[in-house]
Amino acid sequence: MLSLKHLAVSSFSENIAYIHKDCEVYKVDDILCLTKVEIHGGIKPICAFLQVVDDEDIVSVNEIGLNTEAFKKINLPEGANVSITTAPTAPSLVSIKRKINGNILSAGEYSSIINDIISNKYSNMDIASFLVASGSFMTTPEVLALTESLIGDDVIHWDNESIVVDFHCLGGVPGNKTDIIIAAIVAAYGLPMPKTAAPSLTSCAGVADTFSVLANVNIDENKFKSIVKNNRAAIANYNYLPIAEASKMIASVERHLGLLQTQHLAASILAIKIAAGVTHLVLDIPVGPTSRIKTTTEAMRLRKIIEYVGDMLAIEIDVVITDGSEPIGNGIGAVLEARDIMKILRNKDDAPQDLLEKSLFLAGRVLEFDPQLRGGQGYVVAKEILTSGRALDALNKIIYAQGKAAQPKIGHLTRDIVAAQSGVVESIDNARINKIGVLAGATHYSGAGLDLLKKVGDSVEQGETLYRIHSINSTDFAFANSVVDGNTGYEINSKGNF
Amino acid sequence: MLSLKHLAVSSFSENIAYIHKDCEVYKVDDILCLTKVEIHGGIKPICAFLQVVDDEDIVSVNEIGLNTEAFKKINLPEGANVSITTAPTAPSLVSIKRKINGNILSAGEYSSIINDIISNKYSNMDIASFLVASGSFMTTPEVLALTESLIGDDVIHWDNESIVVDFHCLGGVPGNKTDIIIAAIVAAYGLPMPKTAAPSLTSCAGVADTFSVLANVNIDENKFKSIVKNNRAAIANYNYLPIAEASKMIASVERHLGLLQTQHLAASILAIKIAAGVTHLVLDIPVGPTSRIKTTTEAMRLRKIIEYVGDMLAIEIDVVITDGSEPIGNGIGAVLEARDIMKILRNKDDAPQDLLEKSLFLAGRVLEFDPQLRGGQGYVVAKEILTSGRALDALNKIIYAQGKAAQPKIGHLTRDIVAAQSGVVESIDNARINKIGVLAGATHYSGAGLDLLKKVGDSVEQGETLYRIHSINSTDFAFANSVVDGNTGYEINSKGNF
Repeated sequence: MLSLKHLAVSSFSENIAYIHKDCEVYKVDDILCLTKVEIHGGIKPICAFLQVVDDEDIVSVNEIGLNTEAFKKINLPEGANVSITTAPTAPSLVSIKRKINGNILSAGEYSSIINDIISNKYSNMDIASFLVASGSFMTTPEVLALTESLIGDDVIHWDNESIVVDFHCLGGVPGNKTDIIIAAIVAAYGLPMPKTAAPSLTSCAGVADTFSVLANVNIDENKFKSIVKNNRAAIANYNYLPIAEASKMIASVERHLGLLQTQHLAASILAIKIAAGVTHLVLDIPVGPTSRIKTTTEAMRLRKIIEYVGDMLAIEIDVVITDGSEPIGNGIGAVLEARDIMKILRNKDDAPQDLLEKSLFLAGRVLEFDPQLRGGQGYVVAKEILTSGRALDALNKIIYAQGKAAQPKIGHLTRDIVAAQSGVVESIDNARINKIGVLAGATHYSGAGLDLLKKVGDSVEQGETLYRIHSINSTDFAFANSVVDGNTGYEINSKGNF
Repeated sequence: MLSLKHLAVSSFSENIAYIHKDCEVYKVDDILCLTKVEIHGGIKPICAFLQVVDDEDIVSVNEIGLNTEAFKKINLPEGANVSITTAPTAPSLVSIKRKINGNILSAGEYSSIINDIISNKYSNMDIASFLVASGSFMTTPEVLALTESLIGDDVIHWDNESIVVDFHCLGGVPGNKTDIIIAAIVAAYGLPMPKTAAPSLTSCAGVADTFSVLANVNIDENKFKSIVKNNRAAIANYNYLPIAEASKMIASVERHLGLLQTQHLAASILAIKIAAGVTHLVLDIPVGPTSRIKTTTEAMRLRKIIEYVGDMLAIEIDVVITDGSEPIGNGIGAVLEARDIMKILRNKDDAPQDLLEKSLFLAGRVLEFDPQLRGGQGYVVAKEILTSGRALDALNKIIYAQGKAAQPKIGHLTRDIVAAQSGVVESIDNARINKIGVLAGATHYSGAGLDLLKKVGDSVEQGETLYRIHSINSTDFAFANSVVDGNTGYEINSKGNF
């Protein structure tokens, strides 16, 4: 038996066990090999990856150290006696090999894979294998099976609500934070909208990142439920809610790999929304040559899959295909996006009109889920709620209830990217703009990002500013600067015949 | 700047950096995310994955801890000042996405991928993605490009030798350690055979594991070269030679995933042999329904790829397709296999005849690389060398030169698996037998494994022993026992009409 020790090391969702190289209970005969072990002594054995220590101060020969993730899961005090055995290979790994070989997996196989992931029987490497193997093709029934498995056992129930709405955007377009404006309008209207939001996977800022600039988004389930009850909406970081755990583990690997397959994304979004108790969902798929979804054909194929899965799982989904040809709004990065949102809610003259119009259009679609509302009235009602200031009031109440954030500053290291020639902005490359924003530090610092002063169709003079880079950290700033000169992401048509 | 600290933790080829959660130099704002950083201060920046520590005894707020792998690579003393930045995404990851989408990658792309792997820019997750993405199909030119990239810059040169031979088996058949017998015969004959051997990837024992029971296999390049010079052969664990580093990193991930794609295997084997300076190679592909390669068609396809790559890289390869329908020899597991090998070299009556004959046949093929030898004489010469005891003498000299091992004991926990009925052994399932041996502990303890007393075609009486399980560790023993009853891996034809 070994004596349990907690090493306060956080390793991002992977369990790690540390044993001394001279440990007598478990012979470390081959340190060239990754080894998975099971640790027994708690209510259930836990799986962990072995790392070998050569320092008695970290772990002694009679001890086993567990990192924070594993220590939480084994739920035993330090000094408890535990034993270890080599972990058997997760049985569902066979299915992954079947998938690599081009087979269609059954619902039972998806369920086993997801259960093994939740039980920490998969390393991040194994999860990566699963994602890549299933990334090249999945049939519609496979997407359904994956979605069902991802929902899990813990679903939030909204008693006494016949309709629970939410909105989600598939992403790929910088800026474009309609979500928060929609939530404000819907809350003011009175439909319950428990919005689950994620931090960014690959973009400059996720909805959770942007709203975190205004309010605390890391709220627990009880707070989430009470705020929705009292204010009709809340915007919570879903990582802090006890739902769809496997989705989170997969997202962590996807984020690292920078690999987002649309079918995984669809399954993951629907699973989270269903687990959050949503009954009616508006899903925005922006289409554009530099967006995530590049063609209408691709968007239609995805729409069919989502509608099928939604129908099978009894969630009402209104898929809206929108224009994703250029960034939406001016700000890109959490603080700059929050600024745009507040301008719109405050009915400022300089509020970005594209973000305003898109938000009203989509909020209208959400409102039309209400059987009480006359068909086609959604947009008009949404606009009235916004212009009257009721949306701003509703959002302020939600911010107050979640906990107002100390608004961070916009990055003070700035550079204006100017037009090399006079003409008309012909196109803005979403992917390029996102990349420059990420390099400027947007994923690490909410105040970093880009502020777009010109959009497609705008006339510019040579030397006039197209956009401004904002950084907090000088290394990021230098990095963004070194890259932007090669390609600004803007194309200017100098003939002016746009 | 942060002060460098070595944490004596070995993490199996991945670089890990530990920083305190309150570190002021690098803001840890999102511990839900896997983060790759670059650490500057050494001659070249090194990449590492970040883990967050909440214990001043492990690292303080002004320190950065590096695990043993990373500390070796940065090559700076403890206390040195270093700085960290977010690591850019490895550029070649784009190619992996292209491969997932079904594209054929260029030689330049393979070269970039392998360079990024060697520079530790890939996490194990990224390597897993690469293996899975390229696992479903690779064109022959892609296998060539991968092989060339894997060879790397460091190649062992054998001055004054016009022919440098080696032998390799593609695996999939338990027992079957012809390699060591072949090396003994070839050494006695006088051709130089610098055999690079690997520890087991998925089997009960690799050639390096089996020979480590007799001699020290973890020898360095100088010793390897001098032993081959003086004794004409040596058998070295290639992990201890400074060649084909990327192959080792890939093998570590493959081993963990239990995922061996034949095209990766072919590229990896050829790269290691070429980097070891081999000019003439006999490659054994055992074919059988429960072996790695299941059909002659598959073996032929692989043979063509290997011959093409060999021709392009100017290594002479004699691919031999052999019978892989059942285990070869009696012992399975390092100690039991070494016992069989010594019985054969000592010309014992109870030496396994199948292993003996196969070894002579293959040794003959290796000897025929010698232009001095008359065509077709290889087998006869090999047999004469073996029966005269010259092969035994040659191997004993090699063992003495490498350093004789303290031979471990055969596992004392035993169980006889007996025939449920009388009849004739109709088939033995390689994969099943390997699995039972692995469960019995063969990959962890050289003395664990199986001893096959009956082979295909043998008559057995009900209750007679088919094979014996040997374990060192009682947990492994219980595990093997719990599994063997479901399926022993033997099929007995009770009618006797074999």
